Amino acid sequence: MTLRKTFSIGLWSALLLFLVSCKQEPNIDKKVPASTVSENLIGYVNPMVGTKNMGHTYPGPSTPFGMVQLSPETNNQPYAKSGRYNRRTYEYCSGYQYADSTIFGFSHTHFSGTGHSDLGDLLVMPTVGELKLDPGISEIPNSGYHSKFSHAKEEATPGYYKVQLDDYNVQAELTASDRVGFHQYTFPKSENSHIILDLISNIYHHKDKNVWTFVRVENDSLITGYRQTNGWARTRKVFFAMQFSKPFHSYGHKKYDSQLYGGFYRRFNEEENFPEMAGKNIRAYFNFKTDDNEKIKVKMALSSVSTAGALKNMEAEIPHWHFEQTKKETQEKWNKELSKITVDTQTLAQKQTFYTALYHTMLGPIVYEDVDGKYRGLDQNIHESEGFKNYTIFSLWDTYRALHPLFNIIQPQRNNDMIKSMLAHHDESVHKMLPIWSHYANENWCMIGYHSVSVIADAVAKGTTDIDVSRAYEASKNTSTVGYFDGIDSYMAQGYVPEDKSSSSVSKTLEFAYDDWSIAQIAKKAGNQDAYDHYMERSENYKNVFDPEINYMRPKLSDGTWRKEFDPIDTHGQGFIEGNAWNYGLYVPHDIDQMISMMGGKKEFPNYLDKIFTTEIEDRYIAQNEDITRDGIIGNYVHGNEPGHHIPYLYNWTDSPWKTQGRVRMIMDTMYSNKEDGLCGNDDAGQMSAWYIFSSLGFYPVLPGSDEYAIGSPMVKEATVRLENGKTFSVKTTNQSKENVYIQKVELNGKELNTSVLKHSDISNGGTLIFHLGKEPNKAWGK
Amino acid sequence: MTLRKTFSIGLWSALLLFLVSCKQEPNIDKKVPASTVSENLIGYVNPMVGTKNMGHTYPGPSTPFGMVQLSPETNNQPYAKSGRYNRRTYEYCSGYQYADSTIFGFSHTHFSGTGHSDLGDLLVMPTVGELKLDPGISEIPNSGYHSKFSHAKEEATPGYYKVQLDDYNVQAELTASDRVGFHQYTFPKSENSHIILDLISNIYHHKDKNVWTFVRVENDSLITGYRQTNGWARTRKVFFAMQFSKPFHSYGHKKYDSQLYGGFYRRFNEEENFPEMAGKNIRAYFNFKTDDNEKIKVKMALSSVSTAGALKNMEAEIPHWHFEQTKKETQEKWNKELSKITVDTQTLAQKQTFYTALYHTMLGPIVYEDVDGKYRGLDQNIHESEGFKNYTIFSLWDTYRALHPLFNIIQPQRNNDMIKSMLAHHDESVHKMLPIWSHYANENWCMIGYHSVSVIADAVAKGTTDIDVSRAYEASKNTSTVGYFDGIDSYMAQGYVPEDKSSSSVSKTLEFAYDDWSIAQIAKKAGNQDAYDHYMERSENYKNVFDPEINYMRPKLSDGTWRKEFDPIDTHGQGFIEGNAWNYGLYVPHDIDQMISMMGGKKEFPNYLDKIFTTEIEDRYIAQNEDITRDGIIGNYVHGNEPGHHIPYLYNWTDSPWKTQGRVRMIMDTMYSNKEDGLCGNDDAGQMSAWYIFSSLGFYPVLPGSDEYAIGSPMVKEATVRLENGKTFSVKTTNQSKENVYIQKVELNGKELNTSVLKHSDISNGGTLIFHLGKEPNKAWGK
Repeated sequence: MTLRKTFSIGLWSALLLFLVSCKQEPNIDKKVPASTVSENLIGYVNPMVGTKNMGHTYPGPSTPFGMVQLSPETNNQPYAKSGRYNRRTYEYCSGYQYADSTIFGFSHTHFSGTGHSDLGDLLVMPTVGELKLDPGISEIPNSGYHSKFSHAKEEATPGYYKVQLDDYNVQAELTASDRVGFHQYTFPKSENSHIILDLISNIYHHKDKNVWTFVRVENDSLITGYRQTNGWARTRKVFFAMQFSKPFHSYGHKKYDSQLYGGFYRRFNEEENFPEMAGKNIRAYFNFKTDDNEKIKVKMALSSVSTAGALKNMEAEIPHWHFEQTKKETQEKWNKELSKITVDTQTLAQKQTFYTALYHTMLGPIVYEDVDGKYRGLDQNIHESEGFKNYTIFSLWDTYRALHPLFNIIQPQRNNDMIKSMLAHHDESVHKMLPIWSHYANENWCMIGYHSVSVIADAVAKGTTDIDVSRAYEASKNTSTVGYFDGIDSYMAQGYVPEDKSSSSVSKTLEFAYDDWSIAQIAKKAGNQDAYDHYMERSENYKNVFDPEINYMRPKLSDGTWRKEFDPIDTHGQGFIEGNAWNYGLYVPHDIDQMISMMGGKKEFPNYLDKIFTTEIEDRYIAQNEDITRDGIIGNYVHGNEPGHHIPYLYNWTDSPWKTQGRVRMIMDTMYSNKEDGLCGNDDAGQMSAWYIFSSLGFYPVLPGSDEYAIGSPMVKEATVRLENGKTFSVKTTNQSKENVYIQKVELNGKELNTSVLKHSDISNGGTLIFHLGKEPNKAWGK
Repeated sequence: MTLRKTFSIGLWSALLLFLVSCKQEPNIDKKVPASTVSENLIGYVNPMVGTKNMGHTYPGPSTPFGMVQLSPETNNQPYAKSGRYNRRTYEYCSGYQYADSTIFGFSHTHFSGTGHSDLGDLLVMPTVGELKLDPGISEIPNSGYHSKFSHAKEEATPGYYKVQLDDYNVQAELTASDRVGFHQYTFPKSENSHIILDLISNIYHHKDKNVWTFVRVENDSLITGYRQTNGWARTRKVFFAMQFSKPFHSYGHKKYDSQLYGGFYRRFNEEENFPEMAGKNIRAYFNFKTDDNEKIKVKMALSSVSTAGALKNMEAEIPHWHFEQTKKETQEKWNKELSKITVDTQTLAQKQTFYTALYHTMLGPIVYEDVDGKYRGLDQNIHESEGFKNYTIFSLWDTYRALHPLFNIIQPQRNNDMIKSMLAHHDESVHKMLPIWSHYANENWCMIGYHSVSVIADAVAKGTTDIDVSRAYEASKNTSTVGYFDGIDSYMAQGYVPEDKSSSSVSKTLEFAYDDWSIAQIAKKAGNQDAYDHYMERSENYKNVFDPEINYMRPKLSDGTWRKEFDPIDTHGQGFIEGNAWNYGLYVPHDIDQMISMMGGKKEFPNYLDKIFTTEIEDRYIAQNEDITRDGIIGNYVHGNEPGHHIPYLYNWTDSPWKTQGRVRMIMDTMYSNKEDGLCGNDDAGQMSAWYIFSSLGFYPVLPGSDEYAIGSPMVKEATVRLENGKTFSVKTTNQSKENVYIQKVELNGKELNTSVLKHSDISNGGTLIFHLGKEPNKAWGK
């Protein structure tokens, strides 16, 4: 999902780049080794994937689902003269662009792959020589504290990042535990070494983003404080404790506020060696004398609760100064998580692409509580998680589709905690709503639908949650009846969102209808038949925005007439968001047969689908559109955005399941790679990567909330999924090759499987799924 | 203590006003009744005293030492065009000026009598008719939500305030519990009644004072939220819960920020009936239909911790809607506190002046913790008071002189809690300093010295504290050795603060020296002889700023020479603050004999003192001086500021104690009254009033930290002090009259007392002190 203008790079360049051979990784043999649990799987992960163009991933270290994402900023993000955010803000959603050659420092919070930006908290930068407190600009060397760097002297693996800061001859190494960023800087000999803490630096920066900063120099090697921002999250607080391995000999700060407290200034030299700093815009520095190759380490612990909480987190997680130990522990965590799926692939590049995708599915949602279970709630009060671990960053319009279903296979316990976090969010919400886009004790209201209900329904359907289903139903009901949210009042009264009342009305109606189906499933499980009936009825609302005259979903007005102006190819202002009528109009995952029949029946439908993949979209739709780039499209099919992620699997509901097999293999081959530009659009908090993981294994959750997967065609030669219940589910193939993408036969636990449907129990009970593949389609299979 | 320019009103007008007869109070007989505990003492309190000119008191209700001070604002305090505070800010330190005829609403926090302003949180205003969200300006009727009012339809007694809002025909009544403000508004019949919550309104307002505001409409009659300000307190947060007795039928808010979150606005009509508000500058409104004479009540609970804390406070303190009950309970609390001293006076006016002063000694420091003991500490973390109750607002340069000593007689338990609060402040301080001016989890650094040590020493000397004295000594030592504070590094190295290093250097040296004597007393009690010797040596540093050539304390430079330019009458730029060399130069309370001997000896000294009281100060010293007004001076003696408060008692150290008796009676008669302008300067958080209470009883704590009081001449005919230990101490007089101000004889418990010294044990053991007074001095007494 993207919200801002992207660079448009042609499909051909993407294909070309794909053909370029993989970057040599010194510790990886070109021959693909057989996968074992003890394997060093992190070696297959290239955290640089997605850092070129608009993948919006970051290369720095984090633990799986960790609260700290410590990563370099390759551009300063000053706000524009108008006070609004800079026009390049979108480009720097996650702080890092591979094309850059400057580093401005290392900050501790980053979204992975989102289409909107925020965070970038607590930027730390080591420098040597004359103290420069201004960041300067990339284009002018030595214009500030930033430094040149090159990819030749840079290394990124899960849990570890290293770079040489050429301007200062400082080597920076980073690792992280769940709540603590760990820096190791190797300085040259100097009387003038500095570590800068820039509390102004921000991602999604605007004039009033910084609300307040508070810093205390507790002693000669410990700092505490917090920053409060008004960014994408309207009211967000990050508390910290920052410890240095070596005492600084002096320190100071500069405040960039127009309004100063005069009285204070008369009494002290507040700017130098004065241990209290507070204001809207502050940059602090800490001075050291360093010997040649002297290492100064910095630990930065975060908390949503308080500086006391941050200190507690530091003491609990990294009570020592052994950088290598933390790095090792974090990398072991990654190996453990990655080994939940071991794969054998045809090429090393595929294996790297696969594990990088798997890595990207575990960078969000993130843990959002202190080691003692305390966290800041949506009501800004401090809560304590009881019986669960609290998570934040739910980019649900993206992630309900495949990421949470993937969690139900390889992270069911975490997913259960996430659902409980959603219910806590509901309880803390003044609207009594489940999260739409939950972000550090804030609700962003980003994108449409109320998809927490889908995540809950999916876990309920798959038996992976122990929540009180009645409570979950009540929360879902509350959420779906908040009249002032996104046209729900009209939706409830008229059965659709009228475009004149609320824009993107067709997309909203379709997503609401699907969500209502999800709520019906929860109601059913809760034994509430009336509610089930009611929500099943609501789930048919998609029919109200289908215009049989033109055979498209179409925006309807409140008077019941169709809006006259309508272009089914245009993505903007046509009643859809991040998709056009061709693509998004197919979003009825809970009633596909009925939708197909409405659209002309099983026979016609494959042609409609074919046209999506083959009709070249005109440039004017690209040019005027910020949500579609040439990178992420095949014909008129947009893989870079989510509403079409189920489309290649829809052939399964026709007489041509073989076409699904061809399409998904094509998408995997062309839309993903192991290179920096290996993502064709924002990774969208892991949804793009989760699509790849599922499709690689040969199936996909077209209807989250059901216990069924649609079968595609696996990319892997072989895969083993290790479940938390101790069982394993294996995917095997015969005749696997780039060309042999078509299913000849499928066997499940030795029995032939003739439908294109896989049940969740087939996975969770353990077993083996064998795909017999061939160059030519077996058009009879799976009909 | 004052920091800003005041109106200069002549001494003669003050005297004239004093002669005008008292305002009739309907329930008080002109004949003074004998005092009894069951007496309705609040009837003698006129909360309007000090609201005219620069007393800086407020008329609204509060409990004794209560966290809520709910009081009207009679002027809007917009900031100046420059963004700085308005030039009239000083005038409106406590929000109310008696000369005004408009009310802008009722806010919940006010300083009593301070010389610097802040607070004015959560302004509530009932209006009727067209909704006006702007306050408007006083000078233009109907220009905003403000209303005309008149003193004829206004009533103020302890714990209760009532006023008719003429523009709206609404009667407003206010009362308060410790942590909850309770409003009762009687509306006329209207379809358009409103209650406005103005979260922009501020005392000490500047462009960036509001840092952040967060509001949730929890349901149709409950609001929660907080405001964070950057005012005099740099980082201050007030959380609240606001409950209405009647559900509002609709509500909304307006945000006055330049930077809005666009995404948010696209999704909702955030301004109307949307239950979440956040931003820098917000005004909210709540709409009602009202019948004629319909009462709508509002409870506003505060917390420094969280909205959950505020709700808890409301539930614990006022779980009902009985306005009269809360009013009664609060007035009973006041009667209980006021009855700690019952007095018989010559005139009703004196009794009113006395009880108003006593009332003013109990409006600060204020309780600063929730009902569960949680409070926000100086480190911005949440702490829990264990074994004490936490207090804030320590205006110590003012209050160590007489207010805390008064507490050691009538509020020893509270004073003990205050000392423990100071120690907690020390522990939470990054400087490891006891409070200088503690203010809602902030340190203001206002004024000079480190007088917490005096408050501790005084309680130690008088046996009213159970603190660990060694811990108190350590905290005192830490505080007195913070080199970067106010020239302490030079003071420690050279024995004085050099004027070229730190301004007001003589005042600082004198106060530090006295404070060091206080620390010595604590050290002695802790059994630390070395520390005692060390601090006794430091306490002699006052000698280093005495220039025997000119017989004045004088600013010295770091090279050891006296500063050449020097004017001992000028208060500004002469090495002193809020006092000149004549007055402030006498501040050596711990070594008065030595000081007198330095200044020419016992024989000469009374002449020096006489000259202070009789030399008319030239207008140019008034005009150029913001700290002295004609209101508060007698000759060159400045009663409106604190450094001279001990001066009238200094005759006791000469052969002319009778002159002290005359002076203190004169000061009581001319500098205090029972009228709105009855304070000759800021009440200074109760210090001015505490001076009056002590002097009225016939003695004064010239040296806090010792167990001695200097005897003056009582104003009362008779007084009974009820001690917490169950004992009573009585002051009686014979021949008391306006003219009979001189002591003929003093008897303590039946035995003649011939020294001018009263011991604290004489009070705390209970007893009777009889002053035999006469028109002519007994010059032999007390020599």
